[in-house]
Amino acid sequence: MTGSTPAPFTADDYRARMERATGAAADAGLAGLLVAPGPDMVWLTGYAPTAATERLTLLVLAPGQSPVLVVPALEAPDAEKAAGAPALTFRDWTDGKDPYALTAGLLGGSGRLGISDNAWAMHLLGLQQALPATSYASLTEALPMLRAVKDAAELELMAAAGAAADQAFEEIRKVPFAGRRESDIGRDLADLLLRFGHSQVDFTVVGSGPNSANPHHEVGDRVIRRGDMVVLDFGGLKDGYGSDTSRTVHVGEPTDEEREVHDLVRAAQEAGFRAVRPGAACQDVDRAARAVIDDAGYGRYFIHRTGHGIGVTTHEPPYMIEGEEQPLVPGMCFSVEPGVYLPGRFGVRIEDIVTVTEDGGRRLNNTTRDLVVVD
Amino acid sequence: MTGSTPAPFTADDYRARMERATGAAADAGLAGLLVAPGPDMVWLTGYAPTAATERLTLLVLAPGQSPVLVVPALEAPDAEKAAGAPALTFRDWTDGKDPYALTAGLLGGSGRLGISDNAWAMHLLGLQQALPATSYASLTEALPMLRAVKDAAELELMAAAGAAADQAFEEIRKVPFAGRRESDIGRDLADLLLRFGHSQVDFTVVGSGPNSANPHHEVGDRVIRRGDMVVLDFGGLKDGYGSDTSRTVHVGEPTDEEREVHDLVRAAQEAGFRAVRPGAACQDVDRAARAVIDDAGYGRYFIHRTGHGIGVTTHEPPYMIEGEEQPLVPGMCFSVEPGVYLPGRFGVRIEDIVTVTEDGGRRLNNTTRDLVVVD
Repeated sequence: MTGSTPAPFTADDYRARMERATGAAADAGLAGLLVAPGPDMVWLTGYAPTAATERLTLLVLAPGQSPVLVVPALEAPDAEKAAGAPALTFRDWTDGKDPYALTAGLLGGSGRLGISDNAWAMHLLGLQQALPATSYASLTEALPMLRAVKDAAELELMAAAGAAADQAFEEIRKVPFAGRRESDIGRDLADLLLRFGHSQVDFTVVGSGPNSANPHHEVGDRVIRRGDMVVLDFGGLKDGYGSDTSRTVHVGEPTDEEREVHDLVRAAQEAGFRAVRPGAACQDVDRAARAVIDDAGYGRYFIHRTGHGIGVTTHEPPYMIEGEEQPLVPGMCFSVEPGVYLPGRFGVRIEDIVTVTEDGGRRLNNTTRDLVVVD
Repeated sequence: MTGSTPAPFTADDYRARMERATGAAADAGLAGLLVAPGPDMVWLTGYAPTAATERLTLLVLAPGQSPVLVVPALEAPDAEKAAGAPALTFRDWTDGKDPYALTAGLLGGSGRLGISDNAWAMHLLGLQQALPATSYASLTEALPMLRAVKDAAELELMAAAGAAADQAFEEIRKVPFAGRRESDIGRDLADLLLRFGHSQVDFTVVGSGPNSANPHHEVGDRVIRRGDMVVLDFGGLKDGYGSDTSRTVHVGEPTDEEREVHDLVRAAQEAGFRAVRPGAACQDVDRAARAVIDDAGYGRYFIHRTGHGIGVTTHEPPYMIEGEEQPLVPGMCFSVEPGVYLPGRFGVRIEDIVTVTEDGGRRLNNTTRDLVVVD
């Protein structure tokens, strides 16, 4: 999460996000939010330190107070260049001072505080010591939907990231597969994502033949052959927002069974997409996709949840999983990606990013969901 | 810290490191060590998950027990390929299970536990909830010297990383500086580090003219001119071990004052190096370098500590700073990098990595410490 800040956001945008977050914290009964470098901080302030380190950098949001960024003095000049800086008060500290005492002074001495999931344990321990009467909850537990609803400018960036991933698929389907290694195709995919504007590639899954039946295979040295199914699942960040799409292609003509399983996953993906609408629960999307696969007798081969949220990271709440009753809200973005995996034989996964609209859902990936035959 | 494991270490090496760490924990009165993905885990097991995530991966070391790696089931096949895997017992867990309860079952229910600095706060909170009668200390606080003393194989890798950084300096001094941007030279340095075998570039500081007087300037868009001092400070990881060296060059002939300040910093760096010997305290290295600069009347322009440890990261304990009484031990590796920074005018820093030997110190950077004139 280092690197460039998404361009189109202003200090006012960040101010509004911080106000929204502070309000949500108050509604959740929290005395404040402690936001560490990483996706939460990027989203709230536009600031991404070069590295997360043992030197405390922390955004402190507390109801009734203006946002404060605690920052090492040596890094303050960088932080002051962030797009959200005009909406922040800076409190810098120099080596040898106690940044936890400084942070404690910004908060009441009691109550429950939300803290970024990825804040360093050493910083949490420092805060717990400086504020012994406080308790803590991870932000994902306390405010899982903090970044989930995207505004219009964010949706444009999400759509652009999705379109770039689609461009990568349109190119990769033209390259030769047979006789090349999975890792070669993976490199091609990474190059294509970068060529079409991504600044960061998060994953390039190329699962060929029996590897296509392992949903967590990434890429290996296996040489792809005619007759292979190949699951392609790739994404990253473009202008600060995520892409993530999967298509399953076949090297040469598929068998009837392969085509049948592919069509089944396609129907499940369609059913999951059709279940997306405001007010439906996350688990309804999972149930809709899963029912199609269950009904066809393949239920025990669909061994993961149907989807995950996406935004300034490629993997975040909300999760489309049984038991998740969170209602869908316009502006949420997540994957719909059912799969069927026949151990040792082949697998199929089809994935689009979908955003919730006023009256349903809109796909941000739009390449064909037909089974594409490659060479 | 993702990517390849340093090649030369065997399961026996990792077993020995884990035994040493467990013994040190017992000596420090700790009931166990909880080691998160990152440098501690790489050093202890050779395992580096693709990414640190919300799914708990944790090495549990407890006196009297054999090492256990708690790992998400989907990642277990990867973890089992790590060089240290034969020295580990694996306890995997699937989505929906409680990994904190699993971890709690591996530990007594009380006592003080050490936890990696960079463990995620959400995981520490999960552990605190599962083990309410335990207390926690960050590993750097509890066992600051855990990774500090390098064995012979590690020292070879450190020396090779230093030599590669030196090769990069020998090349960069030949390139044209005047008329190019700091960021251009920074890219050249990154390319050179990679060309000479680094897998990861951690920093490429190019501070020219007045920017050389800011010790935490990285690179900017400033166009370098004749007459500029240019601080170059660069490093990264080669075969899993770190490099970090600084030289200050001058574009064209320096003034007498520039040469004088450079010679002063050189003398301070030499004095710091001469103070390195077993049994000396870390602060003695700082004092020796600082005394030279103080005596010349430039004390208030030397605004940072003299050095930091280096190993599987480019920045770790021990720190060469006033107040650090930790005695030096053969095999420790750290930077000796005094500097003088004249605000708005120019600055000089000279840095070598030094390792403690039986009778003194050995530099792992050996390019000239004369003031190099570049074009």
